[in-house]
Amino acid sequence: MRIIGIDIGGANTKIASADGKIIELHYIPLWKDTTLPESLEDIATELKPDMVSVVMTGELADCFEDKLEGIQFIMRSVDEAFDCKTMYIDSNGHFYDEDSSLRELAAANWAASTRLIGSEIGDCIFVDVGSTTSDIIPIKDGKHVAGLTDFSRLVRSELFYAGTLRTNLAYLLDKVQVADGHCNISSELFANTADAYLLLGDITEELYTCETADGAGKSKTDTMRRLARVVCADLTEISPDDIYNIAAQVKERQISHLCETISVVAEKNGLNRIVSAGLGEFMIKEAAKRMGFECISVAEKWGNEISKVFPAYAAARILENEISQPGKE
Amino acid sequence: MRIIGIDIGGANTKIASADGKIIELHYIPLWKDTTLPESLEDIATELKPDMVSVVMTGELADCFEDKLEGIQFIMRSVDEAFDCKTMYIDSNGHFYDEDSSLRELAAANWAASTRLIGSEIGDCIFVDVGSTTSDIIPIKDGKHVAGLTDFSRLVRSELFYAGTLRTNLAYLLDKVQVADGHCNISSELFANTADAYLLLGDITEELYTCETADGAGKSKTDTMRRLARVVCADLTEISPDDIYNIAAQVKERQISHLCETISVVAEKNGLNRIVSAGLGEFMIKEAAKRMGFECISVAEKWGNEISKVFPAYAAARILENEISQPGKE
Repeated sequence: MRIIGIDIGGANTKIASADGKIIELHYIPLWKDTTLPESLEDIATELKPDMVSVVMTGELADCFEDKLEGIQFIMRSVDEAFDCKTMYIDSNGHFYDEDSSLRELAAANWAASTRLIGSEIGDCIFVDVGSTTSDIIPIKDGKHVAGLTDFSRLVRSELFYAGTLRTNLAYLLDKVQVADGHCNISSELFANTADAYLLLGDITEELYTCETADGAGKSKTDTMRRLARVVCADLTEISPDDIYNIAAQVKERQISHLCETISVVAEKNGLNRIVSAGLGEFMIKEAAKRMGFECISVAEKWGNEISKVFPAYAAARILENEISQPGKE
Repeated sequence: MRIIGIDIGGANTKIASADGKIIELHYIPLWKDTTLPESLEDIATELKPDMVSVVMTGELADCFEDKLEGIQFIMRSVDEAFDCKTMYIDSNGHFYDEDSSLRELAAANWAASTRLIGSEIGDCIFVDVGSTTSDIIPIKDGKHVAGLTDFSRLVRSELFYAGTLRTNLAYLLDKVQVADGHCNISSELFANTADAYLLLGDITEELYTCETADGAGKSKTDTMRRLARVVCADLTEISPDDIYNIAAQVKERQISHLCETISVVAEKNGLNRIVSAGLGEFMIKEAAKRMGFECISVAEKWGNEISKVFPAYAAARILENEISQPGKE
């Protein structure tokens, strides 16, 4: 029986099978002329699953007037694409049924992850640094104790809206140190975190799956050109050293922000063990080291590929467990 | 004789005649499928100027590999559109001739403004808060003493990359206070400063000339919806009070940043008089008040419409003066 988990975000849709053999990452932005319905049909035709378990965060995309409209669009796209049974996981990590509120399906991909982590690893702070955001979720007595909406998690430091690829550097940086002094930065979308981490060698060009800010390529020169624009310079005006230093300051800033948010969650919940997942595990490990916390890596336990699509994998595994042990939910 | 000044930015092209009777603002983004060449032809046909004086900042747009490519594209577009003589002002406030370097035309619109201010008002800090950026330019002995490139001005606090319309709120804000506590914010481009200032009544819908972040309208509900998304909320999740407070915090943050940058320039140059221009004069006046500095308003001296397109007006006036008093440059 082939069970597929699907995690539908605003920018990326991730697929994993419960046995971990199928792992796919599709760049399908929702916010403009989205191809989600057709892409899901292609996925259905290719993978022919027997059951599908869905988590989503894409309902926040600003093509939707509100989250309910987003949730309904995503559900309709999934249900029309797949002939088989489709099930949806809510922010408590449970399957949606007609007694629950549709709105509880909003931004629930981390709830699937933490349900699996809670049962397989136990109490910890689950930290997933993905392409766009960072989830910092406390798990106690095997269950997450996080806020149930993105808004609530932003207040509780359980959501830090920065990731490994799609984050505008203007969001992370205030000023940067360059050879000539402290430098203000541009507020345009001139470069993303993907540019910084590609230049630093923390991600490969293959992992740079989002669009570039200027629509140009992903070569080293293209990347350096984008990073130079962050201080309104072109490559004739700024040294390669300064450009590398800008990238390094992005990384330092993001790791120190991660430490701050993890600290808030750790103190509030009396937890000091981290489970790390996502494309940005390298940052989480460094943050854990600085804080003196144990860090269990999803990539090391389940493999690199599964770490990058962990909510989709968790969704598939939760459905598989539910079928083999019905009623245990 | 009709002399027209043109200020070609990355997002907006502004037009003013030397007599101040013609004032136009055109939204012509350069970064994607730009219509600049055709739009300039329309302007030429309609205004039929005898001479054109040009300043630019649009060469930084990331459709250009470097600034030289941007400058050449803009010059070609202007020269092909106008049959009359066209002249370009460089970052020293002088007209470009073949002995100068083309690169000195980059980001020089403030140099035109400060040449006119230097001769008509005298020593001061000229502060122009436009749609996208804030120039903070020291004028001493009638001449600007600022850095000659955007990069250099960012280091010297003479350029603060935030404006009244197009600035992503994620750049300005770190956290915001809401009823439930201090809240992290999203790094997406969910709302611009235009949304905050429209809601606060500091600009009118007519002045909100840039695109909205979500492509939706500019009604109060549309605006509030965008501001709510900055904390990942929709209108069912956050109170109108919280939304107004977010807008107020944007304004407070931007004014306090302005105070900081003006202070740096004031101390370095021993100046304590401000001349304010641009759509954001309301912020400059408040900053001047807090700092106890005299503030001379371009809007009050030359009129509101001229204040909004001051570099274009200054470019036209400089050319007019040059013709009536040749050799005095």
